Amino acid sequence: MNKHHLGLAPSMPSDGLIFGADYNPEQWPRESWPDDIALMQRAGINLVTVGVFSWAQLEPEEGRWNFAWLDEILDLLHAGGIRVSLATPTASPPPWLGKKYPQTLPVDADGNTLWYGSRNQFNPSSAKYREAAARITEKLAERYAKHPAVTLWHVGNELGQISYDDETACAFRRWLMDRHVSLAGVNRAWGTTFWSQQYSTWEEILPPRTAPYIRNPGQELDFKRFTSDQLVSLFRAERDIIRRYDTEHPVTTNMMGFFHGMDYFDLASETDFVANDWYTDPGDPDSWQMGALTHDLCRGMSQGAPWLLMESATSAVNWRPHNVAKEPGALRVDALSAVARGADGVCFFQFRQSAFGAERFHSAVVPLAGAETRVFREAAALGSEMAQLGAIAGTSSQARIAILFDWSSWWAGESEARPSQRLKVMDQLLAYYRPLLRHGLSVEVVHPNSDLARFDLVLLPHLFIVEQEQATALTHFVADGGQLLVGPFSAVADREAKLATARFPRVLSEVLGVSGEEWLPLAAPVPIIFTSPSASHDGGDPQATLWSEDLEVHGANTTTLAYFASGRLSGKPAVTSNVWGLGEARYIGADLPAAALESLVLSAVQAAGIELPVPARLPDDVEAVERGGRLFLLNHGSTSTSVELADTTITLPPYGATVVSQKTNRVYS
Amino acid sequence: MNKHHLGLAPSMPSDGLIFGADYNPEQWPRESWPDDIALMQRAGINLVTVGVFSWAQLEPEEGRWNFAWLDEILDLLHAGGIRVSLATPTASPPPWLGKKYPQTLPVDADGNTLWYGSRNQFNPSSAKYREAAARITEKLAERYAKHPAVTLWHVGNELGQISYDDETACAFRRWLMDRHVSLAGVNRAWGTTFWSQQYSTWEEILPPRTAPYIRNPGQELDFKRFTSDQLVSLFRAERDIIRRYDTEHPVTTNMMGFFHGMDYFDLASETDFVANDWYTDPGDPDSWQMGALTHDLCRGMSQGAPWLLMESATSAVNWRPHNVAKEPGALRVDALSAVARGADGVCFFQFRQSAFGAERFHSAVVPLAGAETRVFREAAALGSEMAQLGAIAGTSSQARIAILFDWSSWWAGESEARPSQRLKVMDQLLAYYRPLLRHGLSVEVVHPNSDLARFDLVLLPHLFIVEQEQATALTHFVADGGQLLVGPFSAVADREAKLATARFPRVLSEVLGVSGEEWLPLAAPVPIIFTSPSASHDGGDPQATLWSEDLEVHGANTTTLAYFASGRLSGKPAVTSNVWGLGEARYIGADLPAAALESLVLSAVQAAGIELPVPARLPDDVEAVERGGRLFLLNHGSTSTSVELADTTITLPPYGATVVSQKTNRVYS
Amino acid sequence: MNKHHLGLAPSMPSDGLIFGADYNPEQWPRESWPDDIALMQRAGINLVTVGVFSWAQLEPEEGRWNFAWLDEILDLLHAGGIRVSLATPTASPPPWLGKKYPQTLPVDADGNTLWYGSRNQFNPSSAKYREAAARITEKLAERYAKHPAVTLWHVGNELGQISYDDETACAFRRWLMDRHVSLAGVNRAWGTTFWSQQYSTWEEILPPRTAPYIRNPGQELDFKRFTSDQLVSLFRAERDIIRRYDTEHPVTTNMMGFFHGMDYFDLASETDFVANDWYTDPGDPDSWQMGALTHDLCRGMSQGAPWLLMESATSAVNWRPHNVAKEPGALRVDALSAVARGADGVCFFQFRQSAFGAERFHSAVVPLAGAETRVFREAAALGSEMAQLGAIAGTSSQARIAILFDWSSWWAGESEARPSQRLKVMDQLLAYYRPLLRHGLSVEVVHPNSDLARFDLVLLPHLFIVEQEQATALTHFVADGGQLLVGPFSAVADREAKLATARFPRVLSEVLGVSGEEWLPLAAPVPIIFTSPSASHDGGDPQATLWSEDLEVHGANTTTLAYFASGRLSGKPAVTSNVWGLGEARYIGADLPAAALESLVLSAVQAAGIELPVPARLPDDVEAVERGGRLFLLNHGSTSTSVELADTTITLPPYGATVVSQKTNRVYS
Repeated sequence: MNKHHLGLAPSMPSDGLIFGADYNPEQWPRESWPDDIALMQRAGINLVTVGVFSWAQLEPEEGRWNFAWLDEILDLLHAGGIRVSLATPTASPPPWLGKKYPQTLPVDADGNTLWYGSRNQFNPSSAKYREAAARITEKLAERYAKHPAVTLWHVGNELGQISYDDETACAFRRWLMDRHVSLAGVNRAWGTTFWSQQYSTWEEILPPRTAPYIRNPGQELDFKRFTSDQLVSLFRAERDIIRRYDTEHPVTTNMMGFFHGMDYFDLASETDFVANDWYTDPGDPDSWQMGALTHDLCRGMSQGAPWLLMESATSAVNWRPHNVAKEPGALRVDALSAVARGADGVCFFQFRQSAFGAERFHSAVVPLAGAETRVFREAAALGSEMAQLGAIAGTSSQARIAILFDWSSWWAGESEARPSQRLKVMDQLLAYYRPLLRHGLSVEVVHPNSDLARFDLVLLPHLFIVEQEQATALTHFVADGGQLLVGPFSAVADREAKLATARFPRVLSEVLGVSGEEWLPLAAPVPIIFTSPSASHDGGDPQATLWSEDLEVHGANTTTLAYFASGRLSGKPAVTSNVWGLGEARYIGADLPAAALESLVLSAVQAAGIELPVPARLPDDVEAVERGGRLFLLNHGSTSTSVELADTTITLPPYGATVVSQKTNRVYS
Repeated sequence: MNKHHLGLAPSMPSDGLIFGADYNPEQWPRESWPDDIALMQRAGINLVTVGVFSWAQLEPEEGRWNFAWLDEILDLLHAGGIRVSLATPTASPPPWLGKKYPQTLPVDADGNTLWYGSRNQFNPSSAKYREAAARITEKLAERYAKHPAVTLWHVGNELGQISYDDETACAFRRWLMDRHVSLAGVNRAWGTTFWSQQYSTWEEILPPRTAPYIRNPGQELDFKRFTSDQLVSLFRAERDIIRRYDTEHPVTTNMMGFFHGMDYFDLASETDFVANDWYTDPGDPDSWQMGALTHDLCRGMSQGAPWLLMESATSAVNWRPHNVAKEPGALRVDALSAVARGADGVCFFQFRQSAFGAERFHSAVVPLAGAETRVFREAAALGSEMAQLGAIAGTSSQARIAILFDWSSWWAGESEARPSQRLKVMDQLLAYYRPLLRHGLSVEVVHPNSDLARFDLVLLPHLFIVEQEQATALTHFVADGGQLLVGPFSAVADREAKLATARFPRVLSEVLGVSGEEWLPLAAPVPIIFTSPSASHDGGDPQATLWSEDLEVHGANTTTLAYFASGRLSGKPAVTSNVWGLGEARYIGADLPAAALESLVLSAVQAAGIELPVPARLPDDVEAVERGGRLFLLNHGSTSTSVELADTTITLPPYGATVVSQKTNRVYS
Repeated sequence: MNKHHLGLAPSMPSDGLIFGADYNPEQWPRESWPDDIALMQRAGINLVTVGVFSWAQLEPEEGRWNFAWLDEILDLLHAGGIRVSLATPTASPPPWLGKKYPQTLPVDADGNTLWYGSRNQFNPSSAKYREAAARITEKLAERYAKHPAVTLWHVGNELGQISYDDETACAFRRWLMDRHVSLAGVNRAWGTTFWSQQYSTWEEILPPRTAPYIRNPGQELDFKRFTSDQLVSLFRAERDIIRRYDTEHPVTTNMMGFFHGMDYFDLASETDFVANDWYTDPGDPDSWQMGALTHDLCRGMSQGAPWLLMESATSAVNWRPHNVAKEPGALRVDALSAVARGADGVCFFQFRQSAFGAERFHSAVVPLAGAETRVFREAAALGSEMAQLGAIAGTSSQARIAILFDWSSWWAGESEARPSQRLKVMDQLLAYYRPLLRHGLSVEVVHPNSDLARFDLVLLPHLFIVEQEQATALTHFVADGGQLLVGPFSAVADREAKLATARFPRVLSEVLGVSGEEWLPLAAPVPIIFTSPSASHDGGDPQATLWSEDLEVHGANTTTLAYFASGRLSGKPAVTSNVWGLGEARYIGADLPAAALESLVLSAVQAAGIELPVPARLPDDVEAVERGGRLFLLNHGSTSTSVELADTTITLPPYGATVVSQKTNRVYS
């Protein structure tokens, strides 16, 4: 969050929950606009995003402007009591831009141009693109800053473009000068003494284009950071233009959760509030878990403040190979999951299903078949419920447990040639998150530079890069009584993705009381024996299946919680615990199966003094979340199930949800 | 068929069946030509295609001509009593063309040139290519129009090239002007208000080159139509040149059955008769079924008139990953299948197996090992049999059952982002075709614009586009007593692939008496219960496994034939029937397993008053086809089997065939 | 071997075994160099390769030279008693070369440039690259030829680049002129009468760039030969420069075993001794078998003279998807396998594990965790053992069994459109090699042009091309009493990959007494029955699963050893034997399962009068090799096992090794 967010800047409207959708009136005849607005009212929609893909409508030729239609629809929406999130249309430039200025088109790593005819065809480093985007942003800001319908500014759409062209190379060089000061600094950061890659002039430096073999990991990492920064600067440029005309309404953009292409901690800090897109996959019964983790990333990026689910689907999407629709009820359950995890509103892409274009098979609030449909009925019922839940808006949802995550670690930790491509950052994140989810525990996914003081338990499921300052903070956190749990292949590298000539996990070895000499991806499963009988599991010894590490305990207060039972590491530690100051630091040098990991995570929870909000492990498919004095119980499964609370049992039908007041036990819905 | 075909133009030679092969004398020393001709005679070959890949031999440098060798071989063939199908060599330009005129080379969607060194390296929109192709066509037509050997003109080879270059872009714009009249028309047809794709000048319009995300489906569809039209115009240009010199002999080209890249209904209408290439896959025991369907497409394109199997293999091909050879006997069975389904001849690629080049491992009439081989012996035996079957030539083979298919529906129905990529047009076509095949019923695969009056039963297994006029014709067809059977995800879109803001299946809802609001690709199988006990199946309820639809019956005379038995659609209709006028229209809103689909198709057959030509379901692997008063019984399997006829039982050895006179019960072979 | 090798040129240092590593001092601060050298001494390292990736350090800008650091480290190494293999750094040009001279960068078949930022980014046909590579080679040779540390010259690194650009096209044309004399010769060799590919001017000829369909197999084969020759000429150019300054020390380069991209028989003949890189895959329990075969290729390329394992890993590599580390002991076992098969030394990539760059996760002699590690301890123990084994250095290890292999056959035999892509050259090689390996029999993998007189048994597992002269030599070999065993799909083509218009296997039909008319890749397994009861197998009849051939015996002394038991070939020969002169020639027209093939290979071994060095089949995972009067027994498995020798039983622990004197039965280690 930037300073605007700290009370100085506009924030999200807080008179109840937002219930909204993207509305693209340019796809429909004007005659139908009043009917659309009537349907919005019927559905309980109180906010629509307008203009996301309107550039070609607003500026059909360079410098020729056409705002009449937008004036008209904004007036109509305002008259209808629908607030507007006004989008800058810069995510999808019109064909004339690419035709007239080919340098605005992105170029891939092979050197091939990506053309217009779809969307997103812009080069984030193109001066000409930036100029055109700034111009239309200014036109919109100037004209609509004072329009009474406009409540919120929506910059672009799902930023994420990348280009490898020559203009990008120039911008990359400037970025590298800022970061590394000198060419020697770049050479040092990238380790160009390896493979004779030393640069003798700035002009030689290029984006990591297609090459004969493995590319330089430092160059790759910096290019990802650079691309992310370029995208952030696109956001900032448009935001600053808007700010010159409107200091009252918040400015944000829609992120895509754990999107690999951009560092959202950086982007979030530039927005007035966090807005995110999440599309549950109804064909994957575990998809809601990834949804919960994603919402908890939003919660983390917001530092507990409310955020907005800016896009979601009412039923099926169109872009998966096999697009299963949401089951009846799932629309509501998915929406409540976001609200329970801190969202102050839920919006859909889109209000009316398109009859043409690439997304004509994507569901909407109003299907092609009209309002007399299951989807519209469920959406409208949810609209009513959101209105009833309005009091929850603005309530904070901070957690006592943090998962540390950052994009640089993700990028560097999954670089081309590493010990095993099977060990993946998102898999580990989910594995360490699930035990918390299973017990209704609140979590924030936060950046390693965050202030850790407000947390009692910190997890690093797989954080490849841990900088010295971060390690120091973690060490202090434990010394001050914190519980720390570190997963395998963490703290491997410094900020330039360089390894240390030392035993791992480098800067964390001391606080963990353990260090290792060899990462050992496994050829076959290896059983692990836990020393404590309390760590009982679902029958049989747990097995590591893809990863092990050759570790040695060296701390005075370090104990081995589990050891490998056979193979080359037989008898050597797999899981350790170190008492450090007032706290404790655990290390797991293997990939553990779910039950073993759950018992370890829970013992850390217990040691942190965090009470479980529900007495027993939740049934599969059930999510339990506390927010604003309410307990949300959500069934994401197709069978009826029951949840035992302290003094009552709640039965949830398939895709059913119940919201219980934690003071009165009153069931809201 | 164009007007030539309607009695005004030359047609296929009809003095018996054609038995032929591609003959490429330029690969062999002149000394061996007489031996080749002697082998042709020995094999019963009466037609050879000459010159398909001879451009570089005929015009070794631009404008330098060398016809001496062709003169000589045509004279020799004529003297030997072998008729010639003379090919224009325009499918494979010589290297000098691409070197001298790089614009004649195709460019892929990424912008990469496809080079010479293989074949097919031409850009169908290149003026320079067209000029060179026209020039050599004229030279050939002028010189050989009166040559006594020449019986037939064979234009190019397996047309199917595509290019995304700038010259193609110009041609595409001209084509779009013709189709959509104005730029506004293009914008409307493609729905460019979606994603800001509106074109402001014609010059902006491009082929659908590689883009960052899903491309515009209207642009993709029109580009496929355009490319197909360009290829048709290539054919037409060469045909018209030939026609100026020869009005006596027919002109055609060899198609590739259900080839995705070109609309063969359009191409067929420009030829004097339909010629097709079909290569059974001996490694796939069901391949013959696809062969039968392909032959019935030829029958449909010919409107029941004879067509020609222009290319097939005597044994293995070389272009599959694992090329299984034909089993002994299969060569004959495959050939008879084509004849039974309306072919007036069977030709092979090629007469002599090449000793070099990319197809040196492709089988031929004369293998590398010579004539004292299984393959040659089988081919020669088939030659004799074809001569004996000569009386069948010219007999019509019209069917009373039609399957509606068109290329635009295929292209649009399998566009990038749709409900499920698992639902495929060809899969559905085969699924609805197999029950007919299993009972020896004759079928034509025809265009939806065809006159339906001559059919009693019409099937639409998966026809994505149904235009209003087509729907009206189908409605009249039913009203007049026709039986109609429509499969899932049909009549989804109009001719521009736009959806309607209405319940589906749009223009067919009324005649079907049913409509739906949501397509529901399945995450897990759902059982279906048939209401009529007569629809018994192979034990257990049938299940839909990938597709369902949320339907509602609304016709006064509509009944539910089957309903979903569990899940979200429990109790809702899966299969319906509507009595409409004198006929009946069935709709299937699911993918049905084979047995259930067979019983539905057969009940439609019965309702259409079509008698079964064989009393019982045929054994697996057995094909039964009527033509010209004969019943062809063909065993495509490796085990002996028997077929019960009305008054006799015919035993078929492995890969055995029997032709029975339907009047005399005389067994021909 | 060229004439230098035959006593006229320098050869490998022979005062004991080499124990070495790549050392890249430019990656480390100068302060640490003395420590590095101390660690080398501690590990028993006696040779380091320096400079492989040092171009940018030596010539940081064009023409600016910096040798001071190299002077210093060579002096330090010499003072420390470590000999130096001095590398020319030409495998990885610095970025300035590609920036300043883009024509030095390779271009792929699509026309895309491969950029710097990795390594190997050079175009082997670029005059500018060759000029720059020659210049730095000369600088190094001039400066260091007399340096006392320099013992050996190491040209480039793992040569294998390929480019399709226009400068390469020019070079390809010149190469074709040399090979085929005239353009008519090229047209003839490539069979350009097929598909109209005839070239009318030299300028039309191009590398086989991306084309619309299957490319000309002759062009593909010649381009592979040309590329290989270009790479050989790069080696030769640098070698000849070095030779002008140093006639004392040998010059070589590191090959990559069965590397597909280059003909190593040609390259080996230009080196002073064979040096090879081999990386066992610890995740694949059979990887050591491929290692043994690779070492026997080195033995073959060396004609039994010692060779050098130039690169191997101490533990895991970084470039596989999942990099399993070597088990404790495996480092030693792998090294001894190479020594036993003729290596006079074992080197590692690299001495110190990199802290940055693309290979930072690749193991080394000194891990990042330092010398107090398992890996360093094992490496140092091996160092001592290698010193003790020093007397073996220089001993020859010629074998009596040869496997014929050549790159042209590999390239042509796996060309694009062939009977089956499932029949692979390396699979067949390994299948025929394993029975020999299982019985400790010594083998050389040699070129078909080799003098066969020194062998008693020759195997052609799958040799696609057999030239007439080679067939004649093989026929004489058998007539003179040799045993010949030929596998399926051998002797298919001539040197231009053209087939003969004849029964196969063409030029070998006479000596084999058998010929065939059709290759028949199988759709389902076919049982095979052996006529001799001695050929017993592991229960049940063996089955061919992917390949069969339609054969006929025609020799007067030919017998059928096995026949197909069912299917189209039922009763026809699958395996034959022909007595020819004093010898015998067997042919196998199928892919046989391991047991059946083993019994056939062993009966040929027996017929050749070759004694088995171990009395019984070796346990799985155990390798037994004789060299220099010693029997190496190596256990590549994770379980303890025993080997029965004539008069004793040796027990091998997991990853254990024993070296037994064959005279004294003394166990060395």
